[in-house]
Amino acid sequence: MRVEGRHYRTIWAAEDGTGDVEIIDQTRLPFDFAVARLTTVAQVAEAIATMRVRGAPLIGATAAWGLALAARADPSDEALASACAQLLATRPTAVNLRWALDDVAAVLAQLPPDRRAAAAARRAAEISDEDVAICEALGTHGAPLIEQAWAAKNGGEPVNVLTHCNAGWLAAVDWGTALAPVYKAHGQGIPVHVWADETRPRNQGASLTAWELGRHGVAHTVIVDNAGGHLMQRGLVDLVIVGTDRTTRTGDVCNKIGTYLKALAAQDCGVPFWVALPGPTIDWTIGDGLLIPIEQRDAGEVTRIFGRAEDGRGGWVQVTPDGTPARNDAFDVTPARLITGLITERGRCDASAEGLLRLYPERAG
Amino acid sequence: MRVEGRHYRTIWAAEDGTGDVEIIDQTRLPFDFAVARLTTVAQVAEAIATMRVRGAPLIGATAAWGLALAARADPSDEALASACAQLLATRPTAVNLRWALDDVAAVLAQLPPDRRAAAAARRAAEISDEDVAICEALGTHGAPLIEQAWAAKNGGEPVNVLTHCNAGWLAAVDWGTALAPVYKAHGQGIPVHVWADETRPRNQGASLTAWELGRHGVAHTVIVDNAGGHLMQRGLVDLVIVGTDRTTRTGDVCNKIGTYLKALAAQDCGVPFWVALPGPTIDWTIGDGLLIPIEQRDAGEVTRIFGRAEDGRGGWVQVTPDGTPARNDAFDVTPARLITGLITERGRCDASAEGLLRLYPERAG
Repeated sequence: MRVEGRHYRTIWAAEDGTGDVEIIDQTRLPFDFAVARLTTVAQVAEAIATMRVRGAPLIGATAAWGLALAARADPSDEALASACAQLLATRPTAVNLRWALDDVAAVLAQLPPDRRAAAAARRAAEISDEDVAICEALGTHGAPLIEQAWAAKNGGEPVNVLTHCNAGWLAAVDWGTALAPVYKAHGQGIPVHVWADETRPRNQGASLTAWELGRHGVAHTVIVDNAGGHLMQRGLVDLVIVGTDRTTRTGDVCNKIGTYLKALAAQDCGVPFWVALPGPTIDWTIGDGLLIPIEQRDAGEVTRIFGRAEDGRGGWVQVTPDGTPARNDAFDVTPARLITGLITERGRCDASAEGLLRLYPERAG
Repeated sequence: MRVEGRHYRTIWAAEDGTGDVEIIDQTRLPFDFAVARLTTVAQVAEAIATMRVRGAPLIGATAAWGLALAARADPSDEALASACAQLLATRPTAVNLRWALDDVAAVLAQLPPDRRAAAAARRAAEISDEDVAICEALGTHGAPLIEQAWAAKNGGEPVNVLTHCNAGWLAAVDWGTALAPVYKAHGQGIPVHVWADETRPRNQGASLTAWELGRHGVAHTVIVDNAGGHLMQRGLVDLVIVGTDRTTRTGDVCNKIGTYLKALAAQDCGVPFWVALPGPTIDWTIGDGLLIPIEQRDAGEVTRIFGRAEDGRGGWVQVTPDGTPARNDAFDVTPARLITGLITERGRCDASAEGLLRLYPERAG
């Protein structure tokens, strides 16, 4: 998507041909647009763990690039196994991480060590390109929902889409998941306005979603996470679209903490609740979302908030009394029964085993 | 309740006999415990509007004191009418404000001007004392719910109560509404632990609820507003107790934005959802909660967050990109159908017209 008129992805091979990888450092947004260079697998693991890159699809692509950097440094079986373990340990919930590592590792296992570095870089680039194609397809299959909502409003007021966290292009290589339909609809000239949940504790909505929508020119308003139910109750939300970090084969969705609350409100208010997901976020081994491991993050993310102080510098402020205990679960589970439907790269379906198997028949049996 | 071992109320007549009023300045909590002196009705209006005092019961008591200060300065009908209008305009949602002003004004209307100042101060003190008695009664009627939950756990783990915003003693003159049952149970030796929603945008949970529970010695953990549904889904919440800024005669509850989302999660997870309310928060003229006016506050409360910076000083940080639009509805409405029951100073009842009329039969017909 566009930043100051120029097209960007979130991750790419450095143009100097060194094999290094460059990323947009998302911990510095929305105040600084900074590119960071990654040269070692340790730097990649740090970038994932500290959320310089985040979002299920982007975590997967970044892990693939991490394995390419590992193979460049030492293509032995032992070194690659160690690199996989190091990358896998960074974030426990998103299943794309394991998917991407398994994919690249399977390619490398068939090659002699001296051919692995080049092959890993090729495969990482392919995974990135595939992610872009998948996310653009999510847009293609999701945009008609926005178009229909606009038609239902008789082409009057803009369509109000509520989203939680950041599942935009910053969460993927490009296009995004939940926001891909928004970008497609916007590109087609359909007036669309996004309610962006700020998404405590890390404020990905207030910082990243607001930033990327603003740079691309899509109308939006930031609200606190508490507000979505009220807006739905008052008819101010036409549909909800969120992403997912892991989806079960039965259509349960594990996404950023707070998603479940919005799904409950959508059901109560009769607002359609859609989840946009690339195929690689489906965990075909799990049938009950409550079995997905939930990442516990540092309590300091709850008790302290990062932003730009009045002197223009970035800084943290503490919001709780000294010594206050806090708990920080990063994700929650939205049961399939609350989900209107899933938007995948192969089309839309019910949030159910039957719905998913209709689109992914190769997974049957 | 106790602060560093000493008992405090949130508002009181200055001990020097001047007729001035003193308050705990809640905008300086949790980092500074500061008492502010109010000498004019304009100062009282400013204190309510900027939330130096907040919480439905405390707003009512403070407005009564404001009218006493007005009567001290000028007891004429015109001046008192002007003071009432000034105070009434500060916050539109809490009905206690109007209730307290009507109460004091009715007393003063029967008196010659030269007797009004003393009578207004007497009545403001009575309203404060009545609020303390009402809130303590909420504790008496609510504590058995916590005791029963503890019994259901076979006296093992502490009872986990989730609350939203601050409906503790800082929101009233003493005891609080939602937290009165917690303080009563704690005082009776029942182990109780409170999940305190941080309550964006103004973080009353993270700052005020955490502060007052900590000072009084009640176990608690701060969570982001997104987390409550997840905790309920995992069996980590035994009951929810919240306050209310205005309750309809039919049992709909208008409370801090986000309350509705927690009520939905409680219903979905089979967790009891109770609302504690002093009689004066009931608006007998309204039968549909969606008709209650919802205060719109400054968008800057969403885009900027106050806390203590690393240098130890209080300050604001901006969390959104420059120029990002935000919307800030202060309250939402929880329909009676989602509420397990109401805790009033006269006992507990269903959230319904029938339930309320059983406890307040003088309102029938």
